[in-house]
Amino acid sequence: MTSATRVAVLNAGGWGTALAVLLARQGCNVQLWARRAEHADQINRQRLNAEYLPGVTLPDAVCATSDLGVAVGDSQVVVAVPISMALRDLTRRLAPLIAPTVLVVHGSKGLEPGTLLRGSQVVESELGPAFRGRVAVLSGPTHAEEVGRGIPTAATVACADQNTAQALQGLFNARSFRVYTNADVVGVELCGAIKNVIAIAAGISDGLGYGDNAKAAITTRFLAELGRLVVAQGGQLSTVVGLAGIGDILATTTSQHSRNRWCGEQLGRGLALEDVLASTKMVVEGVPATRTAMALAERAGVEMPITRKVHSILFEGQPPLAALAELMGRQTTGEGWL
Amino acid sequence: MTSATRVAVLNAGGWGTALAVLLARQGCNVQLWARRAEHADQINRQRLNAEYLPGVTLPDAVCATSDLGVAVGDSQVVVAVPISMALRDLTRRLAPLIAPTVLVVHGSKGLEPGTLLRGSQVVESELGPAFRGRVAVLSGPTHAEEVGRGIPTAATVACADQNTAQALQGLFNARSFRVYTNADVVGVELCGAIKNVIAIAAGISDGLGYGDNAKAAITTRFLAELGRLVVAQGGQLSTVVGLAGIGDILATTTSQHSRNRWCGEQLGRGLALEDVLASTKMVVEGVPATRTAMALAERAGVEMPITRKVHSILFEGQPPLAALAELMGRQTTGEGWL
Repeated sequence: MTSATRVAVLNAGGWGTALAVLLARQGCNVQLWARRAEHADQINRQRLNAEYLPGVTLPDAVCATSDLGVAVGDSQVVVAVPISMALRDLTRRLAPLIAPTVLVVHGSKGLEPGTLLRGSQVVESELGPAFRGRVAVLSGPTHAEEVGRGIPTAATVACADQNTAQALQGLFNARSFRVYTNADVVGVELCGAIKNVIAIAAGISDGLGYGDNAKAAITTRFLAELGRLVVAQGGQLSTVVGLAGIGDILATTTSQHSRNRWCGEQLGRGLALEDVLASTKMVVEGVPATRTAMALAERAGVEMPITRKVHSILFEGQPPLAALAELMGRQTTGEGWL
Repeated sequence: MTSATRVAVLNAGGWGTALAVLLARQGCNVQLWARRAEHADQINRQRLNAEYLPGVTLPDAVCATSDLGVAVGDSQVVVAVPISMALRDLTRRLAPLIAPTVLVVHGSKGLEPGTLLRGSQVVESELGPAFRGRVAVLSGPTHAEEVGRGIPTAATVACADQNTAQALQGLFNARSFRVYTNADVVGVELCGAIKNVIAIAAGISDGLGYGDNAKAAITTRFLAELGRLVVAQGGQLSTVVGLAGIGDILATTTSQHSRNRWCGEQLGRGLALEDVLASTKMVVEGVPATRTAMALAERAGVEMPITRKVHSILFEGQPPLAALAELMGRQTTGEGWL
């Protein structure tokens, strides 16, 4: 599956648009689905998604539409990258439109509130058992603006079925977009769902006026607790130290553009969560992610001290300085991971 | 071993001075050894190491001296943190001055050129077998300025003998300096010796104008090759993802102050190595570290593609852009670590 593959990308946010551009440059015919008809029209007219990926000209092989049936039509591959809380609804609408010959790859970085299901579990529960082995996840340190501009990036595509993973690797892999396969769907999805917790924690550290040492230490110790959770859920430690884990965490905690790091920084400076959230129109995924991560850790019986402290700061009113002091003052120990 | 422990810190660079301050605040009596008598006098007179750790007032319990015998005197613990290429010479001078009741902890981040010995191997070869189990290494993301100013930091102390490791943990652990133990001396020392290679690589990526995605990807894939080397040498993968590994790498690759990252950035912009090195008085440890890392990888038969490319850029005149293109264009693969 290389050139002239027919792909539907849902939806036309920054990441979806960047992937549509990438796939079109690879020779695919791409249908880019936008929720609003006027947005689709604008994209087709301007050859540009000015709203979500400014400055990137769309290749001719990208065609936008707001009709999901048209978008999916005779596509061989569906790339579903809505915001994570919209994944179930989108997949439900998708279900009657596609046959189980189609490969579905999602990019959701979140657990479903309440059920705590991972992205592929949500997708499979809506598409049904015929799609088993045909649902994959794409993850890694992939800021959309950089991918759209063709700046080198590496990502991982995970599927329990290695044929599917390799087919999608062949589809996405490009000169400026290096794709690795990974069989550990659980690990890749959990890393993506929980990485924004450490982005908030890193921001809190910055907001308190701490330095590189503290941020590196918190991130490192967070990896240990993320590793414990991933293993307890049946995933692999190697995934935590791979592109979907440490890779994505690195890009998120160091980025000046990360909303989650920014949110943490405001909290570290002493602002209240409701005031921080009220000051932006953007979704700060780390806030619900901290809730679902904590719920999952409790269900799995895994100790996650940093996540617990972020939870205390976000939802229980604990002052950041006191939370940090408690972390630093814990019983000294060895550096064990598990 | 807590208060009133007598400690010698060798020597009065930024890191040595920060550790002297930390230990004095913990209640130790600290002799801080400076190579030059006038530097020792200046430190004692000004209660400040203006040259290497400006802005940090020294507690009264720190006394500087340029007499190694006086410094070591009746010390119970010797903290040896010279630049790594001076470690053997310093330990050789130390050998006749201390009895094997003393604990020795070094902070060297380098392999000895030629022999490729790690820090503790160098120290033990000079002090003799009586010191086995009494030589440890202190490592982690520990910028001296931050430790000196009491900004929260975490570090790891590694020794094959857990009693020694725990005694040193008790000595160094403080409210703003959290210390973990680790039994994996090989892993901790190799991570420290090789981390500056990735700092240069990260700088090259920045210098080429690449973004967060590329830097995160290179760092993540570098961890995989570092992990292969550490395991081949008898160390633990968990150390690579601990404070001495990913922790120190995080602090180094993200720091604006890292000389190694800066050096890489200049190379990425197209400058030649000799011009970059000629423009600074500082030692860029990553340059010799790349030589020793490559030599060790070849001796161990371990594939380290990113280290090899940094070596090509530094010493074989390969243009950074071509080196990166070759890395991106390698045969696609799974995300395996070992």
